[in-house]
Amino acid sequence: MRQSLRIGLAGLGTVGVGVFNLLQENADIIAARAGRPLQIVAVNARDANRARGVDLKNCVWAARPQDLLSIENLDAVVEVIGGADGDALALAEGALRRGRHFVTANKALIAHHGAELAKLAEAHNAGLGFEAAVAGCVPVVRALRDGLAASRITALHGILNGTCNYILTQMRETGQSFATILKQAQQKGYAEADPALDVEGTDTAHKIAILAALAFGKAPVLTKGNTTGIGHITPTDIRFAGELGYRIKLLGIGREQDGKISQSVEPCLVPASSPLGMVEDVYNALFITGNYVETPFLSGRGAGREPTAAAVVSDLIDLARGRIGPAFGIPASQLRAPMLADTGDDVCGFYLRLNVIDKPGVIADLSAILRDRMISIEALLQRGRDPGQPVPIVMKMHPCRARDMREAAARMAKLEACAETPCLLRIEEDL
Amino acid sequence: MRQSLRIGLAGLGTVGVGVFNLLQENADIIAARAGRPLQIVAVNARDANRARGVDLKNCVWAARPQDLLSIENLDAVVEVIGGADGDALALAEGALRRGRHFVTANKALIAHHGAELAKLAEAHNAGLGFEAAVAGCVPVVRALRDGLAASRITALHGILNGTCNYILTQMRETGQSFATILKQAQQKGYAEADPALDVEGTDTAHKIAILAALAFGKAPVLTKGNTTGIGHITPTDIRFAGELGYRIKLLGIGREQDGKISQSVEPCLVPASSPLGMVEDVYNALFITGNYVETPFLSGRGAGREPTAAAVVSDLIDLARGRIGPAFGIPASQLRAPMLADTGDDVCGFYLRLNVIDKPGVIADLSAILRDRMISIEALLQRGRDPGQPVPIVMKMHPCRARDMREAAARMAKLEACAETPCLLRIEEDL
Repeated sequence: MRQSLRIGLAGLGTVGVGVFNLLQENADIIAARAGRPLQIVAVNARDANRARGVDLKNCVWAARPQDLLSIENLDAVVEVIGGADGDALALAEGALRRGRHFVTANKALIAHHGAELAKLAEAHNAGLGFEAAVAGCVPVVRALRDGLAASRITALHGILNGTCNYILTQMRETGQSFATILKQAQQKGYAEADPALDVEGTDTAHKIAILAALAFGKAPVLTKGNTTGIGHITPTDIRFAGELGYRIKLLGIGREQDGKISQSVEPCLVPASSPLGMVEDVYNALFITGNYVETPFLSGRGAGREPTAAAVVSDLIDLARGRIGPAFGIPASQLRAPMLADTGDDVCGFYLRLNVIDKPGVIADLSAILRDRMISIEALLQRGRDPGQPVPIVMKMHPCRARDMREAAARMAKLEACAETPCLLRIEEDL
Repeated sequence: MRQSLRIGLAGLGTVGVGVFNLLQENADIIAARAGRPLQIVAVNARDANRARGVDLKNCVWAARPQDLLSIENLDAVVEVIGGADGDALALAEGALRRGRHFVTANKALIAHHGAELAKLAEAHNAGLGFEAAVAGCVPVVRALRDGLAASRITALHGILNGTCNYILTQMRETGQSFATILKQAQQKGYAEADPALDVEGTDTAHKIAILAALAFGKAPVLTKGNTTGIGHITPTDIRFAGELGYRIKLLGIGREQDGKISQSVEPCLVPASSPLGMVEDVYNALFITGNYVETPFLSGRGAGREPTAAAVVSDLIDLARGRIGPAFGIPASQLRAPMLADTGDDVCGFYLRLNVIDKPGVIADLSAILRDRMISIEALLQRGRDPGQPVPIVMKMHPCRARDMREAAARMAKLEACAETPCLLRIEEDL
């Protein structure tokens, strides 16, 4: 047996403790697969005295994250502190500059600084692993980087945030509001005290940026203005979507067409019986479209202590084997920022729900706005009548240009009869 | 750009031509991901003069597969000839002994000789790639070897043969017999003229042997006597399974318990709304169970020219990158034949369909046989009555020992009232 892979671990929160436990519990199988033992020789965390249920007596304690870098003969640094900059970035740069492998579960760090870190890694012949940053233990990074490397990938559709998927699933099953379910999710530990990163779509935006970089051979970029969360989705929308044969899922979407990339995060309608439509609760999934491979699909536990730890350790095993590859699938020197497409040019179906005052002529006004933009209605649902009061009207549109549809919805919002902001959602059919 | 990876291709059938086309069509993206171009410099096929729509003018023609080995500066040999022994095995051994990488789509070869080839590869510092041998472009080999390497995998459930899954799907949708649908599948090119390898389960047995080796860290073995095909499944079984909430799928199953491995191939009932239950037509899928990762799931096109070619080329890309890993996830020197469990000890639910002569006392006789073995019935379905004639009776059993259930079914088959061999199928619930 060759000598151990010596690891410095920064962060002893949920995931850090998971990595610790996993390396102990599966030590035999991990050593067999890595060809050598994996050993945490040094740790750093904010509070040295907190009880965590892990035995640190064989580990050097580093007072600050960067103190890990002065540990002798360290092979790899694992970062599970979080944050796009600050300590996490300094540690990544410091480790890679010293030729030490760097493995992280930090999607913000990789989404913001992935390309420069990949260049550092390559320059110093070190490995950069971030399988844990997206979809937990579901090996989506490897699938795009290695398994599907021969395919010209044209689209990615991912359910990448377990908190949002849990909330949407619960809303559908109970008919309760976003706010009510969010509170329950927080009580169960499925949502953070400050849920903004999750429910406003930022977390998904980080993840689709990483996946799009891998799929399309570009540097990861965060696109502005194309990120919408799930706070405006109502049980009414979920029920109407169900009547039309769909479920509402927060999707991270990446597309490549004519050399341009489009990226967005938004709640979409997906067919209820499609692979993505069937992904419920905290599960994550990725539906990939590419030439030669058609539509591979991966799903599983996307977050939490154990799946994330399993992904971190899978990267360490590959590094212990000596398998250092291009972090984003192509040589880092070739990673360029992508040309971005205008998502207004996308052509797709739409779901539109309006709350309108129930009075004669409303439907005529709405349909005139659509007609003027050559948008045609495939289905129109109206339940109940309540003259003079707001009632929901739902329309499913035939595929049209997104820009036209958004203009039409904005125009409708200005109608006197329109009681609140319309809810406009993309329909993603071929999943 | 570094120099090309020089490839010798043995076999210009469906997959060989697919590899050829893919390397041309996606040449830019493949070279970027591999860090260098991939170039087929020599080919071999049975008939040099057959028109295949590929331009071979820049390739050396090898009259016999082994002639590829004398091509100078060859980096890798791709074998898509087929067969567990003969030319394929000789070529694999010859290539690896010369330190050349060997990539294959040949599941029979790897199931029979995988461990010895992995040892040869390791001894000569060459790569052995067989992602294409199982589930086409769905990266199941990499998932088990790399992405889930930190997990102690305890079970695999795979839909690994597209022909069988297509036939079972069509039988369900049309209500037609196995024989009728098989004939249609042959006309459409979804089944071979000699369908035995597929429909009798041998192909699935090869594939689950490979996956079990990867998952459990053992040499691949073919288990005797645990392989059942789909020829005895009737539309009646599919209909009754549906009434009970299940679909019938040919599963390759691998399990590890107390250090012993059990492997089987058999048509099973799986919940209709489970991930595996939803996999239809020619699609393949793998449902994995392991600690820390819970239940990751992968699916996609499992066979055919393009997906298989994509998997072959994905292996070539990894080799061009210099990423040579342990072929079965652990050092080849440690690959041992597994201890095999007796599947008779398995405890699970069962579906049993009997055709019995409709006369008083039959149910009493059947239930006495079950009672004597402490097997209890969860549901009993009987449709229609036709005194003196055979009618189908279907029972769903609570979980019991497989050995007891098989004995009970054999005992029932001997009853005078039993008009034909009972159809006994496992129920796999937690998928």
